Amino acid sequence: MSRQAETSAPITDVIANRWSPRAFNGEPVSNADLVKMLEAARWAASAFNAQPWRFIVASKNDAAEFDRMVAGLGEFNQVWAKNAGAMIYVTAWNVTSEGRSAPTAKYDAGLAVSQLVLEAQNNGLYCHQMAGINRDVIREMYNVPENFDILAAVAVGYLAPADTLSEKLMARETAPRARKPLSEIAFSGDWGSSVTLD
Amino acid sequence: MSRQAETSAPITDVIANRWSPRAFNGEPVSNADLVKMLEAARWAASAFNAQPWRFIVASKNDAAEFDRMVAGLGEFNQVWAKNAGAMIYVTAWNVTSEGRSAPTAKYDAGLAVSQLVLEAQNNGLYCHQMAGINRDVIREMYNVPENFDILAAVAVGYLAPADTLSEKLMARETAPRARKPLSEIAFSGDWGSSVTLD
Repeated sequence: MSRQAETSAPITDVIANRWSPRAFNGEPVSNADLVKMLEAARWAASAFNAQPWRFIVASKNDAAEFDRMVAGLGEFNQVWAKNAGAMIYVTAWNVTSEGRSAPTAKYDAGLAVSQLVLEAQNNGLYCHQMAGINRDVIREMYNVPENFDILAAVAVGYLAPADTLSEKLMARETAPRARKPLSEIAFSGDWGSSVTLD
Repeated sequence: MSRQAETSAPITDVIANRWSPRAFNGEPVSNADLVKMLEAARWAASAFNAQPWRFIVASKNDAAEFDRMVAGLGEFNQVWAKNAGAMIYVTAWNVTSEGRSAPTAKYDAGLAVSQLVLEAQNNGLYCHQMAGINRDVIREMYNVPENFDILAAVAVGYLAPADTLSEKLMARETAPRARKPLSEIAFSGDWGSSVTLD
């Protein structure tokens, strides 16, 4: 099953091949792969190199800790994400430790997690990010400080066949991938004026 | 001059080699390369596939439009960024067109721009993102709607020798790259408890 992005020009393989499955085979992600992913995130750009991101991580090799991580997800996501091989929570400060506001922190965290996801992809793994998480539960379970926002969870693992999912999730897993056309997201000269790059 | 990230395990080349120079040689970025970069951004993940990002783009091949883009940067950034070969403003909605709040939009925009930057890097280009921009000026120049935040600018171009910069900027350009250690950004089991992945 090819899920490659349909682009008007060829792009880098690891980017074109990245997508967010829900069918994982339950195989644990190795510590070596998690180190690579975290290193890729660590070296992302951030405003003033402030590095506002912090990650909470568990491989399924530590089953008890992995299960505790899964328990912080929304119920809909727990159903499939329990078959991932590692779980990561993504946090970023909203106020720095020196009390300064951090308006770019969420954006910077996105830059970091993208590198983490692409590093995973380049090692045969897939990631599925979730906004559907129980932030209060996670904050309490892991003592996340009030000046850090809990932004997302990332399920990481090895792909399983789509028919290992429920019928409803299988339909979503195999539906054609879709994005807005470039003309709706890239402008030139004025807002809404489609960029012309032919 | 190697600026490769120092990582505890080898990571994907395009990620390890990404950095944010200020010395650009003034050569315009081709439309073909801009299309690839925008396609890479377009296919990023986002919560509910909402794709909250919008980009304003100009290549230096359109000198008048490029200069107008540069005029939206902070004065410090204008000095060096005028030698880039293209300029991109990154925006994301804070409220959707249906009036729903969009708490993940900035994070999602980071995911998209990271793919744009890595696509550029894989085509021999470098990017330097800036938070130091004149948002009021940009909003007025380009009629950016109030429900979109202007998050960052991205200078894109070809590398020039560091000694084409002022002495002060050259020192920053050639200083060793640095990041917090993994132990300060990745936890397991509890906040602040360094993940051990040996």
